[in-house]
Amino acid sequence: MASHPHAGDPVFDLHLGGKMEIVSTAALTGPEELSLAYTPGVARVCEAIAADPSMTQHYTWVPNTVAVVTDGTAVLGLGDIGPAAAMPVMEGKAVLFKQFGGVDAVPICLDTTDVDEIIETVVRLAPSFGGINLEDISAPRCFEIEARLKERLDIPVFHDDQHGTAVVALAALTNALRLTGRDAATARVVVQGAGAAGVAVARILLQAGVRDIAVLDRQGVLTSTRSDLTAVKAALARDTADHFGRSGTLADMMAGADVYIGVSGGQVPEEIVASMADDAIIFGLANPTPEVHPDLAHKYARVVATGRSDFPNQINNVLAFPGIFRGAFDVHATAITEGMKVAAATALAELVGADLREDLVIPSPFDPRVPGAVRSAVADAARRDGVARR
Amino acid sequence: MASHPHAGDPVFDLHLGGKMEIVSTAALTGPEELSLAYTPGVARVCEAIAADPSMTQHYTWVPNTVAVVTDGTAVLGLGDIGPAAAMPVMEGKAVLFKQFGGVDAVPICLDTTDVDEIIETVVRLAPSFGGINLEDISAPRCFEIEARLKERLDIPVFHDDQHGTAVVALAALTNALRLTGRDAATARVVVQGAGAAGVAVARILLQAGVRDIAVLDRQGVLTSTRSDLTAVKAALARDTADHFGRSGTLADMMAGADVYIGVSGGQVPEEIVASMADDAIIFGLANPTPEVHPDLAHKYARVVATGRSDFPNQINNVLAFPGIFRGAFDVHATAITEGMKVAAATALAELVGADLREDLVIPSPFDPRVPGAVRSAVADAARRDGVARR
Repeated sequence: MASHPHAGDPVFDLHLGGKMEIVSTAALTGPEELSLAYTPGVARVCEAIAADPSMTQHYTWVPNTVAVVTDGTAVLGLGDIGPAAAMPVMEGKAVLFKQFGGVDAVPICLDTTDVDEIIETVVRLAPSFGGINLEDISAPRCFEIEARLKERLDIPVFHDDQHGTAVVALAALTNALRLTGRDAATARVVVQGAGAAGVAVARILLQAGVRDIAVLDRQGVLTSTRSDLTAVKAALARDTADHFGRSGTLADMMAGADVYIGVSGGQVPEEIVASMADDAIIFGLANPTPEVHPDLAHKYARVVATGRSDFPNQINNVLAFPGIFRGAFDVHATAITEGMKVAAATALAELVGADLREDLVIPSPFDPRVPGAVRSAVADAARRDGVARR
Repeated sequence: MASHPHAGDPVFDLHLGGKMEIVSTAALTGPEELSLAYTPGVARVCEAIAADPSMTQHYTWVPNTVAVVTDGTAVLGLGDIGPAAAMPVMEGKAVLFKQFGGVDAVPICLDTTDVDEIIETVVRLAPSFGGINLEDISAPRCFEIEARLKERLDIPVFHDDQHGTAVVALAALTNALRLTGRDAATARVVVQGAGAAGVAVARILLQAGVRDIAVLDRQGVLTSTRSDLTAVKAALARDTADHFGRSGTLADMMAGADVYIGVSGGQVPEEIVASMADDAIIFGLANPTPEVHPDLAHKYARVVATGRSDFPNQINNVLAFPGIFRGAFDVHATAITEGMKVAAATALAELVGADLREDLVIPSPFDPRVPGAVRSAVADAARRDGVARR
């Protein structure tokens, strides 16, 4: 390897030259191959697609290709570092898409943070891709961008920071509730954080039958009595804490709660953790510092999960997004529905099966059964939900 | 291979599933690799780029990656077939970029034909790519798009339909003039066609010392006395036929002309071909039907070239664009200058060397020396022109 500014550092050595490349699947070894893959032969393929756009599905790489789109405003825990600095994460995502889903992913880092411009740009790019994976776009902009793109495009649009996290968290929670003998319909759940992940986690829990959810932002529980909420938070308040008349601080909510899901990056004091119900479930998903460190969580909780690979029960999006797009692409889906997300979570939860125990409520990202299980569950759900085109 | 609508047709069989894929250069075989290539390790690479954007050059795939951008308005000889139907050509281009230049190319087919929107979109995409190759965008829009993108971006922007054709035509013409004992400064040249390729061919010939050029569109010679010219054509008229007071029809211009370069798609009647000077040079570059068929051309001309692979002297852009971007990327060039294009043409012409004869004025696209010769000539020229960043 050539020398470079950070030579000798394993992370930078691995990143030298980037993490991906384009490879041809049609070798051009001479004039004959060239005349098939390029002019004059290629003209007939173009004409076939011009006459029948569905031919794109057969004769281009488009149906297997997802754009990983970011504006660099919410990259990992680093925040708004801009599109250039976001690229290594997007390349990493592309590598994971291919390795775990066989999906070709192209990193698109946009030099704009304007909501309208991002939407316009992605709409204009859409003929080049079979799906759009939004990534590391800050809240609340991400909600509007995703919603409007879903309206305008007939290909899957998925914001992984929201829905990838939500799917895997739901899978782990499903098993944690089962292990602790709880019912989704009666469990008391606290979600701390109302950004991209917090909102999506709360929404998928509602979709999966959880009813008693209090979602908190830095100002406290989301309730309709608050005048400082965005439209997204206000709608979520109506569907969560309002129903049970809950309001107040984190300490108020945690007293007697069954489940804590942290997606905030804050820290929960020990006395608050201690106030939870017996056999509590604690997911501290902030990286690299969980809201409740596992050592502390285990003093009071029975099931503990984090976002980290060095503790058991890692809530890792890679369990979801490759199989979700793989399954959606398999049936040429026009969208990724709530049903497809819940199906992915159910498939992940079921993979644990008889192995279920406190430190195994979610499969490992390297469990070879994961991509296939998610893929087929998602494809089936797409058919049930009427969004499959084949 | 699975069955498909055109199964058994070699062109469609080859295109099944598209012609390219993304491959990881960083295998993720377990949690340790994942923690280097993705979180948490990748965060340090992002931070390094945020602190010093030039680190993008070392630790991402961006510096080796070109976007092949089209709006599908002028695809091959098929015309305005739209972005979806253009994709097979763009994939083919990407395959050629990799095979002949080691450049990773991503096809971007845009769902807009508005000049401002195309420019905005490409500017927003720019952090994701080391260069922009415009492709199959109709004239005169292509001129404005290229010019404005060059102003706004500090990475190479190159419209291959213009400059790729121009570079290879100049290389072939250089050798044809030498073979027929002509001087560029005194040769009488007729360029038929004032679209993307015609304008670029005339411009590079001027750059290379050709002085007496008459460029014709469907209404006749471009001259400043005409009131129907676009700004691009008017400027070209001032630099070409105006100098020699030439005006009139194709027949007027061809009588006694030394060189005919057809980039129009029309047909030249035999009596007009017959009126050219002795030892004439005829390049009929329209595909698949040259403006002058080689069988006819050879009756009156000494050197004949076409765009077709089944005749000698093929003017094929693949001789130029992979090596041009490779050379530009090697030195991290901020632009592709006129000097770099002329250097590419000179390198191509020189490769023929002592083998020069009537049916060998330009190397074969499969001559293994081509990419390296163009690459180093272009890199050297970038340094001379002050656009090299390393």
